[in-house]
Amino acid sequence: MALKEGDIVTIWIDSKRVFLLKITKGKKLETDKGYILHDDLIGKEYGDLVKMSRGSAYLLKPFLEDIYLDLKRPSQVLYPKDVAYMIYSSGIKPGDKVVEAGTGSGFLTISLAYFLGKEGKVVTYDIRKDMQETAKYNAYILNLTDRIEFKNKDIKNGIDESDVDAVFLDMPCPWEVVSKAYEALKPSGALIVFVPTVNQVEKSYLEMEKYNFIEIHAEELLLREYKVKEGATRPKNIGVVHTGFIIRGRKSIKPL
Amino acid sequence: MALKEGDIVTIWIDSKRVFLLKITKGKKLETDKGYILHDDLIGKEYGDLVKMSRGSAYLLKPFLEDIYLDLKRPSQVLYPKDVAYMIYSSGIKPGDKVVEAGTGSGFLTISLAYFLGKEGKVVTYDIRKDMQETAKYNAYILNLTDRIEFKNKDIKNGIDESDVDAVFLDMPCPWEVVSKAYEALKPSGALIVFVPTVNQVEKSYLEMEKYNFIEIHAEELLLREYKVKEGATRPKNIGVVHTGFIIRGRKSIKPL
Amino acid sequence: MALKEGDIVTIWIDSKRVFLLKITKGKKLETDKGYILHDDLIGKEYGDLVKMSRGSAYLLKPFLEDIYLDLKRPSQVLYPKDVAYMIYSSGIKPGDKVVEAGTGSGFLTISLAYFLGKEGKVVTYDIRKDMQETAKYNAYILNLTDRIEFKNKDIKNGIDESDVDAVFLDMPCPWEVVSKAYEALKPSGALIVFVPTVNQVEKSYLEMEKYNFIEIHAEELLLREYKVKEGATRPKNIGVVHTGFIIRGRKSIKPL
Amino acid sequence: MALKEGDIVTIWIDSKRVFLLKITKGKKLETDKGYILHDDLIGKEYGDLVKMSRGSAYLLKPFLEDIYLDLKRPSQVLYPKDVAYMIYSSGIKPGDKVVEAGTGSGFLTISLAYFLGKEGKVVTYDIRKDMQETAKYNAYILNLTDRIEFKNKDIKNGIDESDVDAVFLDMPCPWEVVSKAYEALKPSGALIVFVPTVNQVEKSYLEMEKYNFIEIHAEELLLREYKVKEGATRPKNIGVVHTGFIIRGRKSIKPL
Repeated sequence: MALKEGDIVTIWIDSKRVFLLKITKGKKLETDKGYILHDDLIGKEYGDLVKMSRGSAYLLKPFLEDIYLDLKRPSQVLYPKDVAYMIYSSGIKPGDKVVEAGTGSGFLTISLAYFLGKEGKVVTYDIRKDMQETAKYNAYILNLTDRIEFKNKDIKNGIDESDVDAVFLDMPCPWEVVSKAYEALKPSGALIVFVPTVNQVEKSYLEMEKYNFIEIHAEELLLREYKVKEGATRPKNIGVVHTGFIIRGRKSIKPL
Repeated sequence: MALKEGDIVTIWIDSKRVFLLKITKGKKLETDKGYILHDDLIGKEYGDLVKMSRGSAYLLKPFLEDIYLDLKRPSQVLYPKDVAYMIYSSGIKPGDKVVEAGTGSGFLTISLAYFLGKEGKVVTYDIRKDMQETAKYNAYILNLTDRIEFKNKDIKNGIDESDVDAVFLDMPCPWEVVSKAYEALKPSGALIVFVPTVNQVEKSYLEMEKYNFIEIHAEELLLREYKVKEGATRPKNIGVVHTGFIIRGRKSIKPL
Repeated sequence: MALKEGDIVTIWIDSKRVFLLKITKGKKLETDKGYILHDDLIGKEYGDLVKMSRGSAYLLKPFLEDIYLDLKRPSQVLYPKDVAYMIYSSGIKPGDKVVEAGTGSGFLTISLAYFLGKEGKVVTYDIRKDMQETAKYNAYILNLTDRIEFKNKDIKNGIDESDVDAVFLDMPCPWEVVSKAYEALKPSGALIVFVPTVNQVEKSYLEMEKYNFIEIHAEELLLREYKVKEGATRPKNIGVVHTGFIIRGRKSIKPL
Repeated sequence: MALKEGDIVTIWIDSKRVFLLKITKGKKLETDKGYILHDDLIGKEYGDLVKMSRGSAYLLKPFLEDIYLDLKRPSQVLYPKDVAYMIYSSGIKPGDKVVEAGTGSGFLTISLAYFLGKEGKVVTYDIRKDMQETAKYNAYILNLTDRIEFKNKDIKNGIDESDVDAVFLDMPCPWEVVSKAYEALKPSGALIVFVPTVNQVEKSYLEMEKYNFIEIHAEELLLREYKVKEGATRPKNIGVVHTGFIIRGRKSIKPL
């Protein structure tokens, strides 16, 4: 399948140089390892190796992971391991409708839109308009704009939507939104909270218990990367040892 | 939305008693905490609390996690944390087509079918027919049968499909299938391998390097659960400390 | 060096059957794998394999680890990994004098006495006399009685000793003892606290900051065991994932 | 106890500026935060805060940890958590005699000498003379020279000592020395091996099994540091995720 204008592609030079772009005639991608003209990508295929002004690069079909690697990041971003588990354990599936706050750099927003498919819907709240500009740009690059509704509002003032399949909170005081999430959710729908400190875990968890959420879990995922070499395989020495905690539960409609 | 015959529902008594069923008139679910008649579920809603012969249970909309909790397990099963990350990092999305081996108890099979949506397709290979019976039953319960093709074949003898979006291997010697996965994959498609020992990590990784896979990673996810209590929050004391390693890479079509 | 009455020996049948004893004529060790008469140990050597009434056992020179494995445990016991790090990072050496509370089963008490040598001194406080009986018995078995002073007192009411090299606290509210530990310590001496919850970490750490401790660290050690088999080496599947947190700092005598 | 010439002291400016020195009249310690004259330390006490040319520093009694922080490091150094556990689980105590290879920067050497006390003995082998110069300097600074014998020899050619309490190996192919360690050890004495890769774990462990070592363990310690702040306590984000594996066992004198 030959690439054409408007297609999205990941330019992979090496593990540390990954660039995501939408092919636009006349544009040029500049990197510290040389440049490439968008025009030269037309007619190529995913998987191809292409020449750059110096050296070469692979063309790949964009994965969510690439978005992460290339993301313009005005704020701290969620990690793929956490986003993967948050989505998986939320019970959502293609076609569902979800609410999220805050938008941040849009990495969770975009991941949700990606997995919810063409008929899915993500409504994302953030009080900072500049944040949402970045997220909007990333959504545009990935042709996911139609599935996302951006709201420049404070979710603490209320959730406009009702009967949603899941609510995702990645914000400073998520416990202040638990009652509102409860109201917005379909019965049995999941509330998924991400926080960096243990004190926030405690507050969020206890508030969810108060509001008839059941099957509540507070969990943390640690990712360990390995350096593989024949006869000398071992975990990498330095890495990320903490990102945050995930608290999740499901709405029940009658008290236990 | 009132439940009716043929609907699927999770019966949640407590965190250790989770049962998944398809409502069938005349049937009865027996547990060590009492029984419930399927007929009594008709007309109820997800989120409701219902009476059992003793005590009560919540009705929930089935999540993949519930499948895991209730799964009939003739073999060791993948964990949700691993399945979540394998799916996420494979780059697949609703409508894609994937190949998997072995079927095992079908937990990955079903998770893939769930996320790929109505237009998605999972082809799953296993040499053991009895394994697939369990997986078929689980797929039936969840109304996912249409999206899955079961093949009682040894994937080492070849992959019938071509142009697939991703290949998932959870089997003893995955390195023997790397070249076949390469051929079956679309350019830029992902191969995702799950193995329990470090020796298998080394062999799989090196074979993937040999076959022009790029952006190869060998990773391990550790999940830590927390016990939350006001003023006394801490990680749980005993738990699973090892499930397995995930090796993943993407097919390039020209040598670097 | 032939074993004689009064010597201590570890009877090692397998990793799960480890018994520590002081050779006493006429006594018998009974296990679910047969018995052995103390008299039969006399004249044997460490490292020897001896017959039991059924099967056989190795005689080993007792290690602190064996004490742990065989310890009579009326309370939850510290783990070797934590005790090792607590002792190491406390800066103590043979001949030093330390204070500890609570005694508990005496595992830390005994470990301290072991490393402090013949001229070292451990003063251990506990409000429960019955606890100390167990610890005393263990100290007797190991010939360490002379190095330990047991006090059946509440350390919250004050520390009788002064100019001690280190203070170790493994008790519910260690922050209530921080000021007293500060007074009892030599300048530059270490306070080492062990607690199971994150809330206790926060309180202990902040109280130590208030009392002019410097180089304060809050740390946690995770131990992972591996199952080694040729070509199939991997971490063990199930294990202890949390024991507790270690907070440590050193007394400075002037405010920063 | 007033400090005098020849005493050792840790100059603690902050957690990242820790300097260990032996007070020598006329000398000066230069740092990027100002300098201090050794003469100005005389008459001060451990715990004191002293003026530097700019700012100030605490004087502390040197701990092994400080040695680590200030160590001149020509090679990769063992970490305190690993050294602590290696020493603890080796069963050694004040007065014992141990063999070690290779010397490296001498951090384990010095730690052993510290815990073995005045009557203890460490014999350390290394093929690189320059390595040992660094270790000798560090031993001199800490007044531990008398307890350590440096041998500029390849331990693979044999261990001169016999009847030693423990052998410690931190070198590329420890399995080649297992049989020699077995001979040098007292019955029941421990062999403790440190290696960075899983392949080395497998080889070392299997060789120890072959040579009648019992109670063999292959373990890994992970240290997690916490950032404590009132109401916002969490693990640190970035850190060391892998140092190495510890394999340990005890010599039995008859085959099982």
